[in-house]
Amino acid sequence: MNEPRSLNDLVTPAAILDVERVARNLHTMAAYARENGLHLRPHIKTHKTKELASEQVRLGAVGVTCATLREAEVMADVTSDILIAYPPVGRPRLERLCALPAHVAVTVGLDSREALAALATAGTAAGRTFDVLVELDVGMRRVGLRRSSDVVALADEAANHAATRFRGVMFYPGHIRQHVAEQNEAIAQLTEDLHEHLGALAAAGHAAGVVSGGSTPAAMASHRIAGLTEIRPGTYVFNDRTTAEIGACAWEDCAYTVLATVVSTAVDGQAVVDAGSKALNREELRAKDARGFGALLDRPDIVVKSMSEEHGILDLARSDWRPRIGDRVRIVPNHVCVSVNLHPVLWAARGEDVVARYEVAARGWA
Amino acid sequence: MNEPRSLNDLVTPAAILDVERVARNLHTMAAYARENGLHLRPHIKTHKTKELASEQVRLGAVGVTCATLREAEVMADVTSDILIAYPPVGRPRLERLCALPAHVAVTVGLDSREALAALATAGTAAGRTFDVLVELDVGMRRVGLRRSSDVVALADEAANHAATRFRGVMFYPGHIRQHVAEQNEAIAQLTEDLHEHLGALAAAGHAAGVVSGGSTPAAMASHRIAGLTEIRPGTYVFNDRTTAEIGACAWEDCAYTVLATVVSTAVDGQAVVDAGSKALNREELRAKDARGFGALLDRPDIVVKSMSEEHGILDLARSDWRPRIGDRVRIVPNHVCVSVNLHPVLWAARGEDVVARYEVAARGWA
Repeated sequence: MNEPRSLNDLVTPAAILDVERVARNLHTMAAYARENGLHLRPHIKTHKTKELASEQVRLGAVGVTCATLREAEVMADVTSDILIAYPPVGRPRLERLCALPAHVAVTVGLDSREALAALATAGTAAGRTFDVLVELDVGMRRVGLRRSSDVVALADEAANHAATRFRGVMFYPGHIRQHVAEQNEAIAQLTEDLHEHLGALAAAGHAAGVVSGGSTPAAMASHRIAGLTEIRPGTYVFNDRTTAEIGACAWEDCAYTVLATVVSTAVDGQAVVDAGSKALNREELRAKDARGFGALLDRPDIVVKSMSEEHGILDLARSDWRPRIGDRVRIVPNHVCVSVNLHPVLWAARGEDVVARYEVAARGWA
Repeated sequence: MNEPRSLNDLVTPAAILDVERVARNLHTMAAYARENGLHLRPHIKTHKTKELASEQVRLGAVGVTCATLREAEVMADVTSDILIAYPPVGRPRLERLCALPAHVAVTVGLDSREALAALATAGTAAGRTFDVLVELDVGMRRVGLRRSSDVVALADEAANHAATRFRGVMFYPGHIRQHVAEQNEAIAQLTEDLHEHLGALAAAGHAAGVVSGGSTPAAMASHRIAGLTEIRPGTYVFNDRTTAEIGACAWEDCAYTVLATVVSTAVDGQAVVDAGSKALNREELRAKDARGFGALLDRPDIVVKSMSEEHGILDLARSDWRPRIGDRVRIVPNHVCVSVNLHPVLWAARGEDVVARYEVAARGWA
């Protein structure tokens, strides 16, 4: 294929990012962090590209957050400061962790003695030291410690191993998903829990130099969490239908769409596009009266009501709009991170012009 | 990384296929088709690998079925007989279709005059002819024509264009998802609809040399659809939790699992593994009392009750089993096709030994 110059040259489905909106989103979050004295350490799981991580660092990010070793390996070309916010459990993963380039300062988040002990042993064998953040559960009930005594005990151990150093705590407030206008109570509860842990750590002689939190839905409330030093939002670079729905961005801030072509109008009341669950991914919108798996950028009332792997069914029942075979649409997915992960490349566009091609280099684990 | 010899050498999550079960599944479907005088044209969307497509052809498949051009381009190395069961709408897609290697006989399924006319024009310009199957809607209400007069009209046009030839009809019985013991009525209705179309085509002078149907859930009922010449199952190569649930395979026929490691047990009543929605994918089980997004191969009562991108939460509430951090489990996903599509490679295993690495070469569209 010749290098595409225009969106019209792309085979669909194709993952498109609007460079102006991306730039605006990056600047907004960077400015928020700077103005509130918070370090910004974006989670690159959302875009998995070197180009966008570089831009995040250029705009002031102190480093990046990764979940997988593949992500960390790719990001080692971009930054020397990587938080792996995921316990590196198991020999194969620890081997790869220890094999990261020597210039990279690696911090690891974890919540168990087993993960810590294995990390310390691997680090000693490899002649490498790791900063450790103890992961707290502040309400999501996924991972993390809830009892301050457990937090202190793990901090003690991290401080005692030769190859690890206790650096602070991290949490992921994934349970805060309500509209931004309704987050006050959850933020207050989170802050109370956090301070209990920080108080216990201080009493035990552990200074938490890093207190790392943040997610895109709760990011702009971070200044209200006293003691927080760092935020790790990921989705904000693109935003998505969920982010818009909860008021964490405007619809016009949605910078990522899946470009799709209408391929069939044979069945009444619907049109079929070539973006299905292998291009958009299937994730329900967590909101009242939520319908569908994505909505058209230019017609948000038109949703993808159902999907097969390569078919998305546009619901036309509530609209007079009737697309024709060959028409193209741009779809904002419910959850952008899992849509990006389906695409080998992201096409950066300015209006209708394709201006760059970004490899989604950090996909997969192998 | 050194080449892994054992499952223990793999970084998790990893996509594993059991070579003995795959061989058994491939033989079972090949034998069914042969014994019932049906052509087998497997849909390779399930595995997207050259190696497994080659094995399907070696066992008697007449060719393969693809949805995307990327799939067809990869499969051109394996077979010279490809059905693209997807309308090639739009210039970029038609260009790639016409650029497929000359040795490949390409058949195209479509349901509109617009798609047909564009195909004919592109074929004429490229000096290439295409066989055409008219797609029927026999109950799924996704794509396809329902009125026999429309079917005949499209067959007329396919016969009249210089670059296209009417070869028959195709349908996808995706609406047949009930247990195999309860499919009789749906199969009878489908057969009645199909015969109405075939009768109308015959009356108009069109011989449908190909009558192509089949999906894994309904595959073993294909001999009861008089007039059917070909089946296109995909999932059968691996099977999954859905296939087992509806009785289209035994649990012991599930040949694909996601190998995962327990990374946290901090929250009571659950264990967290490193296979989440980016390794298993999120698709609900369409069955009564269905729970979760996957189940453990060796403990099918333990399900993945919820997921984040890199976290799967095993529900331990109904079990006394308590895994430890570092333990490994193998998870059968609800829908195998969308899980495979998340992995760059499939690891072929015999017991605990890794015997081959298959690239999932036909992922994506670019």
